[in-house]
Amino acid sequence: MKRGFGSDNHSGASPEVLKAIAEANVEHALAYGDDEYCARVGRLFKETFGEQTSVYFVFNGTGANVLNIDAMCRSHNAVVCAETAHINVDECGAPQRIVGCRLLTVPTPDGKLTPDLVKTQLHGFGFEHHSQPRAISISQPTELGTLYTINELKALADLAHSYDMYLHVDGARLANAAVALGCTFRQMTTDCGVDCLSFGGTKNGLLMGESAVILNPKLDVELKYRRKQMAQLCSKMRFMAVQFEAYLTTGLWRRNAEHSNRMAQLLYAELQNVPQVKVMYPVQVNSVFAQLPREVWTTLQQEYFFYDWDEAENVVRWMCSFDTTEEDIHNFVAALRKLV
Amino acid sequence: MKRGFGSDNHSGASPEVLKAIAEANVEHALAYGDDEYCARVGRLFKETFGEQTSVYFVFNGTGANVLNIDAMCRSHNAVVCAETAHINVDECGAPQRIVGCRLLTVPTPDGKLTPDLVKTQLHGFGFEHHSQPRAISISQPTELGTLYTINELKALADLAHSYDMYLHVDGARLANAAVALGCTFRQMTTDCGVDCLSFGGTKNGLLMGESAVILNPKLDVELKYRRKQMAQLCSKMRFMAVQFEAYLTTGLWRRNAEHSNRMAQLLYAELQNVPQVKVMYPVQVNSVFAQLPREVWTTLQQEYFFYDWDEAENVVRWMCSFDTTEEDIHNFVAALRKLV
Amino acid sequence: MKRGFGSDNHSGASPEVLKAIAEANVEHALAYGDDEYCARVGRLFKETFGEQTSVYFVFNGTGANVLNIDAMCRSHNAVVCAETAHINVDECGAPQRIVGCRLLTVPTPDGKLTPDLVKTQLHGFGFEHHSQPRAISISQPTELGTLYTINELKALADLAHSYDMYLHVDGARLANAAVALGCTFRQMTTDCGVDCLSFGGTKNGLLMGESAVILNPKLDVELKYRRKQMAQLCSKMRFMAVQFEAYLTTGLWRRNAEHSNRMAQLLYAELQNVPQVKVMYPVQVNSVFAQLPREVWTTLQQEYFFYDWDEAENVVRWMCSFDTTEEDIHNFVAALRKLV
Amino acid sequence: MKRGFGSDNHSGASPEVLKAIAEANVEHALAYGDDEYCARVGRLFKETFGEQTSVYFVFNGTGANVLNIDAMCRSHNAVVCAETAHINVDECGAPQRIVGCRLLTVPTPDGKLTPDLVKTQLHGFGFEHHSQPRAISISQPTELGTLYTINELKALADLAHSYDMYLHVDGARLANAAVALGCTFRQMTTDCGVDCLSFGGTKNGLLMGESAVILNPKLDVELKYRRKQMAQLCSKMRFMAVQFEAYLTTGLWRRNAEHSNRMAQLLYAELQNVPQVKVMYPVQVNSVFAQLPREVWTTLQQEYFFYDWDEAENVVRWMCSFDTTEEDIHNFVAALRKLV
Repeated sequence: MKRGFGSDNHSGASPEVLKAIAEANVEHALAYGDDEYCARVGRLFKETFGEQTSVYFVFNGTGANVLNIDAMCRSHNAVVCAETAHINVDECGAPQRIVGCRLLTVPTPDGKLTPDLVKTQLHGFGFEHHSQPRAISISQPTELGTLYTINELKALADLAHSYDMYLHVDGARLANAAVALGCTFRQMTTDCGVDCLSFGGTKNGLLMGESAVILNPKLDVELKYRRKQMAQLCSKMRFMAVQFEAYLTTGLWRRNAEHSNRMAQLLYAELQNVPQVKVMYPVQVNSVFAQLPREVWTTLQQEYFFYDWDEAENVVRWMCSFDTTEEDIHNFVAALRKLV
Repeated sequence: MKRGFGSDNHSGASPEVLKAIAEANVEHALAYGDDEYCARVGRLFKETFGEQTSVYFVFNGTGANVLNIDAMCRSHNAVVCAETAHINVDECGAPQRIVGCRLLTVPTPDGKLTPDLVKTQLHGFGFEHHSQPRAISISQPTELGTLYTINELKALADLAHSYDMYLHVDGARLANAAVALGCTFRQMTTDCGVDCLSFGGTKNGLLMGESAVILNPKLDVELKYRRKQMAQLCSKMRFMAVQFEAYLTTGLWRRNAEHSNRMAQLLYAELQNVPQVKVMYPVQVNSVFAQLPREVWTTLQQEYFFYDWDEAENVVRWMCSFDTTEEDIHNFVAALRKLV
Repeated sequence: MKRGFGSDNHSGASPEVLKAIAEANVEHALAYGDDEYCARVGRLFKETFGEQTSVYFVFNGTGANVLNIDAMCRSHNAVVCAETAHINVDECGAPQRIVGCRLLTVPTPDGKLTPDLVKTQLHGFGFEHHSQPRAISISQPTELGTLYTINELKALADLAHSYDMYLHVDGARLANAAVALGCTFRQMTTDCGVDCLSFGGTKNGLLMGESAVILNPKLDVELKYRRKQMAQLCSKMRFMAVQFEAYLTTGLWRRNAEHSNRMAQLLYAELQNVPQVKVMYPVQVNSVFAQLPREVWTTLQQEYFFYDWDEAENVVRWMCSFDTTEEDIHNFVAALRKLV
Repeated sequence: MKRGFGSDNHSGASPEVLKAIAEANVEHALAYGDDEYCARVGRLFKETFGEQTSVYFVFNGTGANVLNIDAMCRSHNAVVCAETAHINVDECGAPQRIVGCRLLTVPTPDGKLTPDLVKTQLHGFGFEHHSQPRAISISQPTELGTLYTINELKALADLAHSYDMYLHVDGARLANAAVALGCTFRQMTTDCGVDCLSFGGTKNGLLMGESAVILNPKLDVELKYRRKQMAQLCSKMRFMAVQFEAYLTTGLWRRNAEHSNRMAQLLYAELQNVPQVKVMYPVQVNSVFAQLPREVWTTLQQEYFFYDWDEAENVVRWMCSFDTTEEDIHNFVAALRKLV
């Protein structure tokens, strides 16, 4: 397949990850997470996010999001999220089918919720005809590549808690956010009052590994049964655990995220004087959204793989990955220049 | 962890599998199955099971079973299965929650349904108070290590079809059955009239890989959306596909299954003259169920890991795996002998 | 339609009920239960079942059962019930679809659970592959017309509570049980430790009226939202409330139930010396189950409507109602005698 | 309770309805709809909506809507509707929980969808991450008291069918629309290409009676089971059928709807020269939405019951009913005048 900027999950796995899997591929281990690897990595998550943390490995981001929503909500509840949220537009209705709840979506200029935007949905409490808001769900970074600051995160958590609600973070690309903000995972989550987190690794170099991280112990109630019931319980779980171990202990998460963020900055810089190309949002992590003439991007797609994001507006998404090279960027922009 | 006979998923992955993953870990590939690896392995499944076949890779056996049930049933339908079926006792109610249907369970002497046993549940058709039977689900081999013959499979498929119902096979260990029966996968499924199959690899040497294999094209309706909605869509799916490729093309499935079956036979043979130990079912694949005094098996568990199966009856399960050695068996039986 | 012994819901409504509806059909009343009628009848339920009681009117027995199960369970839980329970065989899988939980069914000789029968299902606690038992559900009277004594009810409630489980009673015909046992509703429920109750009226003279009665306040959590979400919230609820008011305050429940019970006793007495007819269970409320030759009962059905209960065993059900007359019984038995 | 303009379901039932119930309250009738009354009224629906029609009586409007959605959609589908649709804002997430599907909501100026507004949601076909649009749902009249013309209905049906989708009409107040448009029920539904209809009576004089009317026979597949499974199957269904019979054959639907529409016109006319009161939408059926100073409407609520509709915008809803009198209107406007 031609290289491109389609998604950070078009890349494979980092060598450190395959190495960790190979090293764990010895002897027997109890299935379903009752093994020493998982115990060790469970402790690692506590060190990373705080002692009250519990982690549930799951298979993919949708699984992590749905398990977290199921931890926060019953079916008569609602989750407030941005209209662009992955749980809203990219999961084929998984929260609705599996949890049975509603999503209350809010249009945003840049994929970010604010307390004021959330408040537009905070009504109807006590009114039985209305799904009761119980959670706010945000993505850090957002699906548009923008970031919440620490203070913005705290403000949303405070708002949630003041309404007896919870704050969930979809962190499929949390490492890219941590690198960009220059903070630890914990500073961006637990310390802000985040209640639960979908912590992803697959988009940043893991073979396959996602997790629902419960930061508020009140939510940690009988979740293991519901993970199983949702078909998200891995049998040979040691192999998921050791991927996260390599990710968190070797600096892999940081190296990969720093690289993909840097590649996006390079792409952004090189686009500055390309005519007809308008970058749409602040480039804060590893994606660049650009508006350009349709005939240009459709021609460019013959050489490079990437997705249109908003066909009506002629906006495309260029996503950099841990294995994107400077040469990829240079060649791509050169090809683009020829077309404009 | 001490070695043992706990489950065939306590073993790791076969070297061929890790090799295939490493070899596929190059360049970019489209996510979610739209890549060349998956196309190639999709063809391989057609060669294996027949041209009309389509395959949906999923994360685990529960995912495969639930997707297959969702292909056959709507919520007002029922699935007839043995009381011992994995979908009934080991999935924490996944079919009920995700499909919303009923299971109609039948007690069996050996884990096997027969047409007569199934017929005890085939009533209430057209009566709106009664969940409408739409599928028969069997496990091949069963959870008790017993096997359906080709003729028995055909009889169940014929029964299902004569009632406008479908036959599903939970084949988490289908390779062990194929080896034991000396037939191809196709002879045991498509050629018998099986409509859909949960075809597993994880218990026979894969790192992580299961699949819902649709053999009756009538069932292949919009399943890709429901796989996604059930959070069973893998992003870096090439790594799942190539595991199956290695499994099916290098003879791995056969080597591993032959070995684990043979180890179970060896164990069975060595148990013949051990006093106080009664083997419960025909040993046809890679498990041995034995009844023995409680103090014996609880003491033995201090040295070897295995599960009690029926505590009331003092029955335990000893499961052999592709990496069980002859020495494991000899040592285990020797340890057992000391205790009886 | 020819009269018969099909079901107590083949009868219409008692005159007292239509009168109460007509009297409430004046002026405006707030919809959805926020009216004075409902407030008044809410207090009446507290007087009847105890001060801690809250009542949720619903449309039918299935609605009451499902709301109660949803109060007790989440999707990963299981409800232990008799194989013959209405929730198991007559609701087309409503608990599975709406709550997403499992039913753990137990064969019984007479429709009644005992602590020992229940205990056969009380295992797998803490094991995530196994739906966690959370409730026992019994029917009083049972679907076979048998009754639990006060002591038997207490024993089941004690068992439930000792496992941190709840006891639910499906009381679609609770009035018939109260009359037969000579006790109050409260003595048979709250005072025994029952946690929640499906309290029916439709089968004993109401036009349409069922209720989920929460006796254990721990279960009364956000149920009003889930009643609405399950489409069980009546808009002109005053008309449901006043039916229960007439039922409970005019002695209607007792008059109707005493009558239908008495008719069943009369039928039972008259059957004593009818050859070829074997009554199957103790006749304790308003139904008689009888085994008799198929050609007899199929011929009899041409004159009288009633249901076969177990076609394989040639058992039929004869149900008496509040409007069954002594003449109905005499004529019916006379017709039967001619055929044997 | 003080009279008011809260809702048309704050009124009781029309005398014709109670009379019909009383007349049907004789002898036995088969339960669950298998009786002569229901057969007769089933034919009446065919005469009303066309020979291909089938009707499923249900308990309330939410039940009708959810059964219709379940007829059109599976869980991976989506229903396009106005943001103000009852299924979106007033059913506590019933479609999500019971069908498991998504609603794709569109903001509208007046509660009405147009083909252009619908098209904003018609994308992502074939893309498995996106819930597949399968139905358009509109309310006639809308929740804002506005009406679709016959041509507008046809245009939406044509759009739906051109995308292999269905058109559902929530007709909780369909009689008010028929009267206002001066057409038959059939002209507004079947003849426009509507596929299924929630046809309500409770808001226009019935005691309790709603129905899912299937106009497109392709949708009439095994619905009786799912009605039962959703707990929407009435046992003494004759009493629901005869309400509809009285409604449709005595001209009751027309008399009641004409009256309530006329009362809204009277209210609208009297408001013309009341200062500070702005009527928000065309008054086409039996409701008036008005914007007026908060202190005015909150004071007025002490005398008359009505709901605020949009607290932020100070918009209230005044709903007229079949038992609203001219005197009610005069007194109400007089009271209002005193406050402005």
